Amino acid sequence: MMTAAELARRLDGLLDGSGERVVCRVDTLEDAGADALSWVGSPEFLPRAGRSKAGVLLVSEECSLPSGCTLIHVKDPDLAVCRVAEWLAPTVDRVLSGVHPLAWVSPDASVEGAAVGAHVFVGAGSAIGTGTQLHPGAYVGSRVTIGRDCVLWPNVVVRERVTIGDRVVIHPNSTIGADGFGYLPRDGCHRKIPQTGTVEIEDDVEIGANSAVDRARTGVTRIGRGTKIDNLVQIAHNCDVGEHCIIVGQCGVGGSASLEHHVILGGQTAVVDHMRIGAGARVAAKSMVCHNIPDGQTIRGVPAVENARFLREQASLRKLPKWRQELRALAERVKELER
Amino acid sequence: MMTAAELARRLDGLLDGSGERVVCRVDTLEDAGADALSWVGSPEFLPRAGRSKAGVLLVSEECSLPSGCTLIHVKDPDLAVCRVAEWLAPTVDRVLSGVHPLAWVSPDASVEGAAVGAHVFVGAGSAIGTGTQLHPGAYVGSRVTIGRDCVLWPNVVVRERVTIGDRVVIHPNSTIGADGFGYLPRDGCHRKIPQTGTVEIEDDVEIGANSAVDRARTGVTRIGRGTKIDNLVQIAHNCDVGEHCIIVGQCGVGGSASLEHHVILGGQTAVVDHMRIGAGARVAAKSMVCHNIPDGQTIRGVPAVENARFLREQASLRKLPKWRQELRALAERVKELER
Amino acid sequence: MMTAAELARRLDGLLDGSGERVVCRVDTLEDAGADALSWVGSPEFLPRAGRSKAGVLLVSEECSLPSGCTLIHVKDPDLAVCRVAEWLAPTVDRVLSGVHPLAWVSPDASVEGAAVGAHVFVGAGSAIGTGTQLHPGAYVGSRVTIGRDCVLWPNVVVRERVTIGDRVVIHPNSTIGADGFGYLPRDGCHRKIPQTGTVEIEDDVEIGANSAVDRARTGVTRIGRGTKIDNLVQIAHNCDVGEHCIIVGQCGVGGSASLEHHVILGGQTAVVDHMRIGAGARVAAKSMVCHNIPDGQTIRGVPAVENARFLREQASLRKLPKWRQELRALAERVKELER
Repeated sequence: MMTAAELARRLDGLLDGSGERVVCRVDTLEDAGADALSWVGSPEFLPRAGRSKAGVLLVSEECSLPSGCTLIHVKDPDLAVCRVAEWLAPTVDRVLSGVHPLAWVSPDASVEGAAVGAHVFVGAGSAIGTGTQLHPGAYVGSRVTIGRDCVLWPNVVVRERVTIGDRVVIHPNSTIGADGFGYLPRDGCHRKIPQTGTVEIEDDVEIGANSAVDRARTGVTRIGRGTKIDNLVQIAHNCDVGEHCIIVGQCGVGGSASLEHHVILGGQTAVVDHMRIGAGARVAAKSMVCHNIPDGQTIRGVPAVENARFLREQASLRKLPKWRQELRALAERVKELER
Repeated sequence: MMTAAELARRLDGLLDGSGERVVCRVDTLEDAGADALSWVGSPEFLPRAGRSKAGVLLVSEECSLPSGCTLIHVKDPDLAVCRVAEWLAPTVDRVLSGVHPLAWVSPDASVEGAAVGAHVFVGAGSAIGTGTQLHPGAYVGSRVTIGRDCVLWPNVVVRERVTIGDRVVIHPNSTIGADGFGYLPRDGCHRKIPQTGTVEIEDDVEIGANSAVDRARTGVTRIGRGTKIDNLVQIAHNCDVGEHCIIVGQCGVGGSASLEHHVILGGQTAVVDHMRIGAGARVAAKSMVCHNIPDGQTIRGVPAVENARFLREQASLRKLPKWRQELRALAERVKELER
Repeated sequence: MMTAAELARRLDGLLDGSGERVVCRVDTLEDAGADALSWVGSPEFLPRAGRSKAGVLLVSEECSLPSGCTLIHVKDPDLAVCRVAEWLAPTVDRVLSGVHPLAWVSPDASVEGAAVGAHVFVGAGSAIGTGTQLHPGAYVGSRVTIGRDCVLWPNVVVRERVTIGDRVVIHPNSTIGADGFGYLPRDGCHRKIPQTGTVEIEDDVEIGANSAVDRARTGVTRIGRGTKIDNLVQIAHNCDVGEHCIIVGQCGVGGSASLEHHVILGGQTAVVDHMRIGAGARVAAKSMVCHNIPDGQTIRGVPAVENARFLREQASLRKLPKWRQELRALAERVKELER
């Protein structure tokens, strides 16, 4: 728990009200009680803030609220509340440094300074960086490199030769480096195409639970620095995902597709094999990308087209029954004229 | 194996035919042989029942069948066959009571009366109820509460502070309580929004294999009593799923969405963030819910609209080429008139 | 590494250029350097082959390239390069024969000749074939039969009574034999329908990462010989998937659906319960199959229709705004005539 005064000081904010208010957690405007801090990220939330019972509110510098609660004026309330949430957060599970007696680390693997939990396996020749936590049940194949301060949550699987940067977080039950899906049809059977490449995950990437990033056929499947991937996402072999992308839950990115930096894929979107999505492009949820997309474009639909066109076509579809009536009425009038 | 007479007695049914017939399993009308019991859930199955080789048939009270097999008349054949299937089922794997020598239970965790399998991890301060089975490889973080008679199948991951009620079943490789997917875009990067809330799973919930239920940003992600979730489903942070819902495979429910009780989501459906779906509403497979949905409505499509409207629009789309011809023919006739 | 001469000899190919060239890996035409081998699978790649810096190129028998590099003429370059990729591939992780000291094998299970990794569990009465590898964290329930030379990658879960053929590969975190999703609505609750059947996976099947194949209600869920399934796929209870099918990532196949042999399902496709898809039928990505599909048909859309019809309807939709204008113009002309 922290006092409003201490929070204002650490946030470099301006205190407005009692500095002795004590808060012990962050909560929404609706759910926060007197022992909680909440925040007003934009003016649209002001009416709800007026009704909030939060003990302390983080607000913008210009914001005025006739509230009984303590205000802390800060430059960026949305950012400030993230910092406060970290200070007040309940403890997140950490693995103890060293190697758990029920873990198995290959003799020539290097885990100096890392934390290796129960039932973890680390293969031959792998190197795990200082401060990295391998939670119980995580599996790291041979010749894997993992940087510093990473977190592999329980039952994550990282297969051989994968490279992972620093501060990467991988949530439970995700799979990195399974074989890409490639077969050659011959004589009525599917002959497996060897998937001899690997996966490179750059610094500050986060990958959700139960997702899968496949190894390349040759070369690498790359996840660029700072990219965030949600749960149940499939990244196929040889994809090149740029920096700072956002890939929402249950997306599937097909083989050899490339996303430039700062692309956003809405949930359940599919990207067809070999497509290229330009920098800063945004794809609406449940779309299918079947063409290359220029930088900055917003697209939608199956197949995905420019947003404006999508909306126009949808509106047309909605009006079809009405147009049908117009067409019929017109036919009647023509018939009348023909008489 | 059981005799028809014993089955009739235990089901409180009326025996019609030899009570000495012995059956050793339940099977479909087509596949059942003389040693199997089958059932007629509704009159539409009567023709197939007439051709069935099942030794014993469960039928409704009014049903008459000129069958050579033994009939047992019961009030609710669909329900009765579930009971018989349980009596005759092959043994389902159970974890032995106590703690397996290859499990790791933190000293201050409470697992009295629970069954803790090989390679299981139970974190500090967690409490596992009597009769609950943790199958091999399951992971339970710290300060987790799990009620009585639950089953966590192998490699299920439940992270810290999650609460699970009684008789909850979670199938293999599912993840409960991973971080919600929340980032704040700042300076071209995505700053992680701490996910300090948790997950509450109420009594009698069942969650399929390889599914993920994320912890809340603040507060809880809730799965209401009696709700059943299929495989590969994503429930995002702060969702509030009501009681007795059915969520079919590969659905994705976006952040802070709420489902009232008895909602049914067809497979591969997406619910957009913050949407509310009313009690008893039914969403067809592969839909996307982009609006709040009133109680009891049946909706379909991307975006999902009322079922009748969806069917009308689809029918219009199908007829477009025909209308196109009509429009052209009409234009010809107008041209003729203009001459 | 291998010389061009040795490769030509092993491939039964015709060497054209220096046989002393040494290559140590396979790579794409663009990425291959002088130490790599690449290939020209079809004439469309010839221009890129002309610019390639690969040390050795596999080409068809009739192909001529004025290239400085060494050519090896073979009957089937696509097939030949798979063989070379295997010869030159970096080592894939293998489990050592025998039982790892941190594994748990039930006393009456048979694992003679198999390789059982760390943290593996093998249940009572199960039989694992010679040459089969159970990677760390894999779980095999009781009375499971697994054939020869299979690979279960880490954290795969196979529940009780499942049968798996020879040379089957299952990628990490996949689940075979979890309960099918079946409930009976009674008194406002969902009563579980016992899932007493099992799963049969035939020879040479490959199943991707984080996929789920459910056990049958009664009888079996079958995956036919040679079928290949990608990541994050759901195969529901009682499905009957034929031989040599291809099921791309994130597909969902509903309960009791049947696929004949050589069916191809594009990514994120849904097949509705009980549908039948004929031999050799191809379903485009992100479709929904709501009708039975004849042999050999190519279908697309939600609901999926014949490809030609889908394209016609999409084209109509694209032209709607134009037709709308035509309709309006025509109405003006009729009005004029009426005057």
